[in-house]
Amino acid sequence: MPQLRIPGPTPIPEKVLQAQGKQMINHRGPEFKIILESCTARLKQVFQTKNDVLVLTGSGTGGMEASLVNVLSPGDKVLSVSIGVFGDRYARIAGIFGAEVVNCNFEYGQGADPGIVRDAIKANPDIKAVLITHNETSTGVTNDLETLSKIVKDAGLLLLVDAISSMGALPLPVDEWGCDVVVSASQKGWMVAPGLCFVSVSEAAWKTGETARMPRFYWDFAQARAFSEKGQTPWTPGLTEFFALDIALDMMLKEKIENIFARHARIGQMVRDGVKALGLELFADPRYASNTVTSVASTKGLDPKLLIKIMREEMGVVLAGGQQTMDGKIFRIGHLGFVSDDEIKETLDALKKALPKTGFRG
Amino acid sequence: MPQLRIPGPTPIPEKVLQAQGKQMINHRGPEFKIILESCTARLKQVFQTKNDVLVLTGSGTGGMEASLVNVLSPGDKVLSVSIGVFGDRYARIAGIFGAEVVNCNFEYGQGADPGIVRDAIKANPDIKAVLITHNETSTGVTNDLETLSKIVKDAGLLLLVDAISSMGALPLPVDEWGCDVVVSASQKGWMVAPGLCFVSVSEAAWKTGETARMPRFYWDFAQARAFSEKGQTPWTPGLTEFFALDIALDMMLKEKIENIFARHARIGQMVRDGVKALGLELFADPRYASNTVTSVASTKGLDPKLLIKIMREEMGVVLAGGQQTMDGKIFRIGHLGFVSDDEIKETLDALKKALPKTGFRG
Repeated sequence: MPQLRIPGPTPIPEKVLQAQGKQMINHRGPEFKIILESCTARLKQVFQTKNDVLVLTGSGTGGMEASLVNVLSPGDKVLSVSIGVFGDRYARIAGIFGAEVVNCNFEYGQGADPGIVRDAIKANPDIKAVLITHNETSTGVTNDLETLSKIVKDAGLLLLVDAISSMGALPLPVDEWGCDVVVSASQKGWMVAPGLCFVSVSEAAWKTGETARMPRFYWDFAQARAFSEKGQTPWTPGLTEFFALDIALDMMLKEKIENIFARHARIGQMVRDGVKALGLELFADPRYASNTVTSVASTKGLDPKLLIKIMREEMGVVLAGGQQTMDGKIFRIGHLGFVSDDEIKETLDALKKALPKTGFRG
Repeated sequence: MPQLRIPGPTPIPEKVLQAQGKQMINHRGPEFKIILESCTARLKQVFQTKNDVLVLTGSGTGGMEASLVNVLSPGDKVLSVSIGVFGDRYARIAGIFGAEVVNCNFEYGQGADPGIVRDAIKANPDIKAVLITHNETSTGVTNDLETLSKIVKDAGLLLLVDAISSMGALPLPVDEWGCDVVVSASQKGWMVAPGLCFVSVSEAAWKTGETARMPRFYWDFAQARAFSEKGQTPWTPGLTEFFALDIALDMMLKEKIENIFARHARIGQMVRDGVKALGLELFADPRYASNTVTSVASTKGLDPKLLIKIMREEMGVVLAGGQQTMDGKIFRIGHLGFVSDDEIKETLDALKKALPKTGFRG
């Protein structure tokens, strides 16, 4: 098998793959109830929250849509703090469902500047909610969410967080930082196939949601919570991913979340050091460099698309390219979830061999 | 393993379960492109359509929501032809997203009367679309969609069909019957775990969709089609279910769809005959009895909940109860997808043994 070094889907441990081969069960029976309740309780541990955590069947983008339509009404003003493709997407979904979006965009590669965010909030006193990407997968940037969340909460606003590629890999204590709705997805730090998203919902978000008028049915949090209370989901859930999550959460809690965070921090540094040692340039501002995904700039004659092709076909390492406006400008190395120091060494060795074949004059 | 005789999730063949254990791949790479294109082409064969068929990550209810928000605008008048819980759900979603719903409801257990549907259409000349459940899982009824579709198409209206528990198991030639949007889901006739839904979209539906104003992002057909054309999905897809679908479609086309339909018809009859031979009463009008799920009435002292418990705990056969207002009034036997004559014989034998313990005086 080639080594999958994209920022999701991420590699799945053998034990988890085996769980995926389990025969179907009744999703309204006692066996599923145990799985759902146990997964939910353990998800809360990783989210570091006492808030409700709901599991919805769909990809992370579905979770983002859900986080908006459950707390907002058409016409509500929201501040979109965007630092890349996924931040832009969050704003776009909000706009499509009728929110009035105030954009607070930062250059790709940068983290959000807390002072500018504070000013934007001050300049728009009628804002209801702020949308922030914790970890921007498209640029390999992690926002300083601890500082940003304080600004948002001090202003008394709802804080919606896209933590799709951070939760379970980077520290994000939901309650301590006062995040109202936080979205993650199974194929990132969780070592599970895509198909489930996880959403934490604060009391304030529930309260706002009671009168929120954006239309919702499939993604409705209230239905998810009502069914969750009887050990079910409103619609047929992705059972295979639940079987997998059940095992993956065991592995995560056995490793302990502090150790998982430390492993990601160590590996993130190893990737950045290794990439720089090869003469490559990091795309992201080093102050905000992500410990789950590293973006590398196409400098010194490097053709990222050719590199990705050679790495895949000749080295057996699958890397990611740039998305949308970043296409051809960067390549990305994913290092989240089930990833070890040895695999990163292999990736860096493969890069060293591949680079001379790509026009790179490092 | 107990025998799973609920109307979805349905049992998964060993070969398909094995495919679910496959390691993750890049969902934007060449390997996934082959799977998506090959699955899409074969889905069209089962749908018997030249229309686009899109694969979305979510459960069947997500597909129902998608079928509405992609072709309708708030204020559009739709006729909901409902014969049960899932027909009611279709109407409810339409209403939540702003459609003006005209209800044409039939008694649970009955199929839709074509004459009444024709009159309802005549009485509402400003109707834009008609929503019909092909196979109503909650009551075990299959509508005469061939006749109903002719009425809808003769009136020049859009026809949206919930074929979640029929497609791939019962004949539904989409093009021949002129169905505009048809929804199915992986965990029913397809022998795959829940997590994917399949939607066919006619030219007329695409055209209407261009100006349709219901808000949509995650479920947007246009994005799904645009990405499908380059062998991708807009958001990260349920890869495990795609691996499984790839194998399951091979099995289906090897068996041939005519033979699959014949097997379901034979087994449906076997279930009904067997149930009646035990002295039980069928809930559904025999003219409309479904060949994928059979509902049995709680007559002669039968306690359906107790029966389901005994069947599961003592006989190793998992049956389904009634939903919502049908709770406690019926039990249901699922017989769709990966099901054989022998398994049905086992189910009927188990029922025979269990019934005397349930208060049944048959």
